[in-house]
Formats: sequence, C-alpha cells, structure tokens
Amino acid sequence: MASDLLAKEIAFIKEIDKLKYVQRMTKLFNSDRRENSAEHSWHLAMMAMVMVERSNEPVDLLKVLKMVLIHDVVEIDAGDTFIYDTHKSHDNTEEERLAAQRIFGMLPDETARDFIEVWEEFEAGKTAEAKFARAMDRLEPLLQNSSNNGGTWKETGVNYQKVHAKKRVIQDGAASIWPYAEGLINEGVEKGLLKKD
Amino acid sequence: MASDLLAKEIAFIKEIDKLKYVQRMTKLFNSDRRENSAEHSWHLAMMAMVMVERSNEPVDLLKVLKMVLIHDVVEIDAGDTFIYDTHKSHDNTEEERLAAQRIFGMLPDETARDFIEVWEEFEAGKTAEAKFARAMDRLEPLLQNSSNNGGTWKETGVNYQKVHAKKRVIQDGAASIWPYAEGLINEGVEKGLLKKD
Repeated sequence: MASDLLAKEIAFIKEIDKLKYVQRMTKLFNSDRRENSAEHSWHLAMMAMVMVERSNEPVDLLKVLKMVLIHDVVEIDAGDTFIYDTHKSHDNTEEERLAAQRIFGMLPDETARDFIEVWEEFEAGKTAEAKFARAMDRLEPLLQNSSNNGGTWKETGVNYQKVHAKKRVIQDGAASIWPYAEGLINEGVEKGLLKKD
Repeated sequence: MASDLLAKEIAFIKEIDKLKYVQRMTKLFNSDRRENSAEHSWHLAMMAMVMVERSNEPVDLLKVLKMVLIHDVVEIDAGDTFIYDTHKSHDNTEEERLAAQRIFGMLPDETARDFIEVWEEFEAGKTAEAKFARAMDRLEPLLQNSSNNGGTWKETGVNYQKVHAKKRVIQDGAASIWPYAEGLINEGVEKGLLKKD
C-alpha cells in the first residue's frame, strides 16, 4: 500500500485524539466529572453490543458500531451541542457538515466516503441501524442523569415534556427498553429532580 | 424480553463506566494528560476501522471491533499493567481471568459467554482478528510516545531492544505498517529519546 495512504490514515488517527478533549454536559455515573465524547462513544458501542437483540428491527451490528464510534467526531470542529439547547439545533448543523467533510476528508478517498455516508445515515435517523444507534445515544445520558441525582436536568432546569420528547427516540429504536426508560423519567419527576411543567 | 435480563444489561453498562477512571501510563497525543482505558479502547476501534485492509490476513471487522472495545474491561478489577513492567506479566494474569468472569459474568448468559470468548481470543493472540487487534493496541502508544518527545520511553528509561521486541507484534498483524513503526522507534534512538542499550 502506498505510503501516502498510510500518511493520511496516521494523520486522521492523530486528529481524532482531539475528541478526548470535547466535554459533554452530562457527567459520568455517580460522578461530578463530565464525560468526554470519546468515552461516550466507547460506552455507546459497548451498549450496542450488549443490547443489539433489543433493536425493533434486525440490524447490521457492524454498521451500528461504526455509527456510534464516529457519530461525534464532527464535534472536534463543531463542539458538543447540549441536547436541550434552545439557541442551536442539535442535529445536522451546517457546521457539522463542514466538520465531517474536513475531518473524514483527511482519510483515503474510499474510507472517507464510507465514514461520511455512515455519519449522514446516523444523522438522518431513518434506517434500522440509525434508529437503534440513536436509541443508545439517548439512553446513556438518561442512565447517567438518574444516577446523578438529576444531573443536567437539575443543572439546566429542563422540564418533563422536553426530556420525554427527546427520549422517545429510545422507543423508535428499541421498544423493549422504553418502559424502563420512561420509568426513570417519571421517577425524576417524583423525586423533584425534573420539573413537571 | 424479561426485565431481569434488562436489569443485568443495565448493571453491566453502569459497571463498565469505571474503565473511564483507569489511567494508562501513556499520554494523549502532544499532551501531558494520561489516557484512560475507555478512550484508548475507542481509539483502537477507530484505528481498526481505518486500517482493516492492512491486516495480513482477511479479518471479520466486527470481531476485531468487539475485541478492542472489550479488551481492557478487566482492568476495572485488575488495573492497567504497564507493558514494560518487569515485576508483573502484562498478559493473562490470573487476576485478569477472575475479572473477566466477574465483570462479563454480570451480563445475560449468552452475551457473557460471547464476551469472555472474544476476550480470551484476543489474549491468546492466535487468530487473524486477534493479531490485527493486537497490532492496533501496540501502534497507538507508539504514535503517542513519538508525538510526546519520548513519553513513557523517557519517563521509564526503557531501551530499544525492549520496545522493538514488544512492537514486533505490529508486523505479525499488519506488516505494511511495520516499516513506518520501526522508523519511529529508530527515530526515537536517533533523537536520544530511547536508550540504544
């Protein structure tokens, strides 16, 4: 294999190290330390392997893993947008598209195209793999917030309606998890960690 | 799916959060911050996706990803053993076996068996997937140390022979990367970052 291809691969591998510095709002389980997006991506991949049989539709696990592993790489340029941010749309900003072009574009052409396609499929959220991957992406911070006495719910004062609406994505990807997930949200309200209105 | 299975999955998902607190000796690229084992596992998965065509033998990428994602989970109990530690063997300690039984054993039976098998296959290092996964595991810290002005080479005073012997695993898994990797080691000696003897 030509060494200019290897050089591109190595440059990309070094570049994505920066995802370890992108801090999310949500904190680790039972913790005060915010999670970074590389750790988050690893955790989603582990969850996807463990819960794959819960996908509403049969999925290609390899594609799901690719999705969750690369889904946040664009944050290296675009930063992490908090899911309940009212000023900025969480999905598909132009900034993220440019980031995907720049960062995945560092790779050899074929791999670059593959990664951009997988990222776009995740963002579009239409295929079985994207729905299941997005369910995992919504479940992890829900588990974290409920382990952290409300976590970002309390910190930001978001209400039940907003949380419930965002978390419904779990049902679209893995319905058998939804009663449990919804239970955690309701528990948050009962405990006064999440505002009802 | 029965809710006791879900309870096991959730308990495992919470337990593995602890891997984010396991600190490795090696530092992030161009950085003074040590890497944790969750970030490291994510990075190996990204590298495996990017470099899979460089495997000496054709591999099942899904199995490689499983390997690198779970390979360090045992460190939650056993801790990270530095690769050039002279007092403790890096591979296959009894402590790690017990850790695999305890941590993967939290999962529903079928998934637990699958994860333990994949982990043992990685540790044994005999199959094409294990050889390629281990090559990735050796390449990342080499790239990091050479970006960090010697990094753990200088910190621990390890010598060329030891580094070269450990890194030869890269050749066994992905020979086309080896000349570049060997070049980085030689460069370390030339720059005085790595002792010749």
